[in-house]
Amino acid sequence: MRVLGVDPGLTRCGVGVVEGVAGRPLTMLGVGVVRTPAGADLGHRLVVLEQGLEQWLEEHRPEYVAVERVFSQHNVRTVMGTAQASAVALLCASRRGIPVALHTPSEVKAAVTGSGRADKAQVGAMVTRLLRLAAPPKPADAADALALAICHIWRAPAQNRLQQAVALHATKGRTA
Amino acid sequence: MRVLGVDPGLTRCGVGVVEGVAGRPLTMLGVGVVRTPAGADLGHRLVVLEQGLEQWLEEHRPEYVAVERVFSQHNVRTVMGTAQASAVALLCASRRGIPVALHTPSEVKAAVTGSGRADKAQVGAMVTRLLRLAAPPKPADAADALALAICHIWRAPAQNRLQQAVALHATKGRTA
Repeated sequence: MRVLGVDPGLTRCGVGVVEGVAGRPLTMLGVGVVRTPAGADLGHRLVVLEQGLEQWLEEHRPEYVAVERVFSQHNVRTVMGTAQASAVALLCASRRGIPVALHTPSEVKAAVTGSGRADKAQVGAMVTRLLRLAAPPKPADAADALALAICHIWRAPAQNRLQQAVALHATKGRTA
Repeated sequence: MRVLGVDPGLTRCGVGVVEGVAGRPLTMLGVGVVRTPAGADLGHRLVVLEQGLEQWLEEHRPEYVAVERVFSQHNVRTVMGTAQASAVALLCASRRGIPVALHTPSEVKAAVTGSGRADKAQVGAMVTRLLRLAAPPKPADAADALALAICHIWRAPAQNRLQQAVALHATKGRTA
């Protein structure tokens, strides 16, 4: 399973590609940040972001895209930019017919560290260990994008098992 | 000046094209709504919206696009959808090199009714009068899109005059 994780943002949009299946060592295929000029108008920044994400999709051909789910408990201005950046990521993936999953920050932290309230350093440390990297990816947005991709690889089979269990239970209910 | 007004939304995105200059009667060239299926996943809805807006841009070739500026004082879920829909509008216009202006709801209301706190009915009535239509455009999102386009046509020269006045004042200051 090859997953592109996207930590949406206008100034820095983290991107990371991870390949693997749950229960086996994972491989990092790429990590980086798409930046857009802070002084430019919003429309131009969204175009630059679209071009950047298209390059990542084109080069790595992921089977899934995992995007951080945006909440609005944070600063209002930041949330708007994040929501708009995530819209571009969703659009680029869906336009290519690639399934997109949204994961919350606490789901991602829980997946890679065991705690939904882990800090940036802890997430960075676990991403480094799980992908057997020499050093934590920088900036934090890039590490977060890798954590999103790992989270998606690990959650996908759990979600499948849950669906199978529900289906089995339904069958048993009918045959009992 | 030909302007496409966009009232961003995921369920209904209002679009309206108005041609004219300030101080002359205005002409409506088109009005409508781009709808996306409420039950579909977000990525698919953004793709449908992109295709719909592309059709409007392709058919009417506006020189300017005016989009409602999104605020977050409303319902959180709605604001996210509105921010993401506006991102698609900004992206489509900017990708074609069309300048995009953002106007707040109160700027639009003030432009067409004289009051920044006018209600939907008042905006609809003034849009109908200013564009010499037989009846108010429905739904309200379509009327709002036309109001945005009218607002842009009327505010553009005012902004230019302001810039000229500032420039003149600066020149006088130097020669005094």
